[in-house]
Amino acid sequence: MRVIKSLQNEQIKYYARLKEKKYRDETGLFLIEGEHLVRMAIEANCLVTLLVAEEDIENYLDIIEEDKTIVVTESIINKLSFTKTPQNVIGIAKQNIVDKKEVNHVLVLDTLQDPGNVGTLIRSALAFNYDKIYVSESTVDVYNEKVVRASQGAIFKINIVKKGLKEIYRFLSNNDFQIIVTSLTNNSLYLEELKSKDKFAIVLGNEGNGVSEESLKNASNIVKIRMSDKIDSLNVAVAGSIIMYRLMEGYK
Amino acid sequence: MRVIKSLQNEQIKYYARLKEKKYRDETGLFLIEGEHLVRMAIEANCLVTLLVAEEDIENYLDIIEEDKTIVVTESIINKLSFTKTPQNVIGIAKQNIVDKKEVNHVLVLDTLQDPGNVGTLIRSALAFNYDKIYVSESTVDVYNEKVVRASQGAIFKINIVKKGLKEIYRFLSNNDFQIIVTSLTNNSLYLEELKSKDKFAIVLGNEGNGVSEESLKNASNIVKIRMSDKIDSLNVAVAGSIIMYRLMEGYK
Repeated sequence: MRVIKSLQNEQIKYYARLKEKKYRDETGLFLIEGEHLVRMAIEANCLVTLLVAEEDIENYLDIIEEDKTIVVTESIINKLSFTKTPQNVIGIAKQNIVDKKEVNHVLVLDTLQDPGNVGTLIRSALAFNYDKIYVSESTVDVYNEKVVRASQGAIFKINIVKKGLKEIYRFLSNNDFQIIVTSLTNNSLYLEELKSKDKFAIVLGNEGNGVSEESLKNASNIVKIRMSDKIDSLNVAVAGSIIMYRLMEGYK
Repeated sequence: MRVIKSLQNEQIKYYARLKEKKYRDETGLFLIEGEHLVRMAIEANCLVTLLVAEEDIENYLDIIEEDKTIVVTESIINKLSFTKTPQNVIGIAKQNIVDKKEVNHVLVLDTLQDPGNVGTLIRSALAFNYDKIYVSESTVDVYNEKVVRASQGAIFKINIVKKGLKEIYRFLSNNDFQIIVTSLTNNSLYLEELKSKDKFAIVLGNEGNGVSEESLKNASNIVKIRMSDKIDSLNVAVAGSIIMYRLMEGYK
């Protein structure tokens, strides 16, 4: 196993830059933190490098592969970590670049901004057996650490592809998907009234402004969830999860 | 209107202390930030004092009541604010102390720790016409600014009461509530199989550890949501909202 002790080491600096989207985009890599996420990355065959603090090597013997592991100091862990009291294990994972085409149940994120919402939706999509998530270019980066954390590792188990909305809708239309767009307009259909086809995509919009014109233009149906008039809207991760739940296979 | 310009003013220091739970508990007051929440507090008759930066008074003329308003500097707004670029309006609101007894649909939060989850659940409970939220003493303070923010002001429109779990279950049992406890055990009923009565309470547990023994002991039913085995669990705000949605009045 290699050992690195200097905070000034070039490789450590290279990893630290992965905190910025720009470098994640350039390298196709991202940082993950803690044992749970590292184990999920290994399972998904996405772990490139493992960094373990020397004090804690014994706790991670079962996941250490000699040629992939670097033993580091706690200061290095702290430099790469996003939390105040990090677990002593950090992974460098590779981003998913497969663009799975044989899919039936798709989630489309149109300009979502909150990383917690995006991570939670990835987690729900996996839980409800969706095949794929399309993420518009204007949506927060899914390899942002808050997204990864809120996804609870689901990010490693579901196909996620970033694309322009026009391209996303071209694929969905050409492949006969029912495009179910969520929007709180007066003439939206209630979710409870919607009949879904075998192949469908659910489109969710921005936290403050809702879905874009491009999404409305491509909608097969525009739906909303029935609720009290005492409040304007639901949290988008909640609304999206309720719709995914309701339309999931086997729903009765 | 009073004018305060000094950061050292005793009243401003008193308000700043409301950032800590201890002082919120002592005074029954809490801070709210931004026009949207202030307007909701006014509607709910909960606004005690309004602080407006002098530069922005003209934008808030319609909500300014002379005897409740203090004109302050931007530095004072910054001192009281939780955000980096605050709106120039902050409210001091009073906590809800009514303990509404004539209720049918109740949400119980047993030791939830994440303020975003708790705020989101308050928002969903209002959206789905629940009457009341019981919050265990071990749950994060609902007047924490992150809870208030995530609730989108729903905190002003639904009855929320903090109590010990024993006392909560005593009330629910004595009043013939069906107590529906969520837990991912093997012999939990699927939500889809559950029959709900007219009066019921949904109990949600801690993000990491689930519900407490006290809740399990008092359960009429233990339920879970059907999902893929590719992931352990849903986010608790999502799970709770799906259950509230499914069991809401008029659900078909």
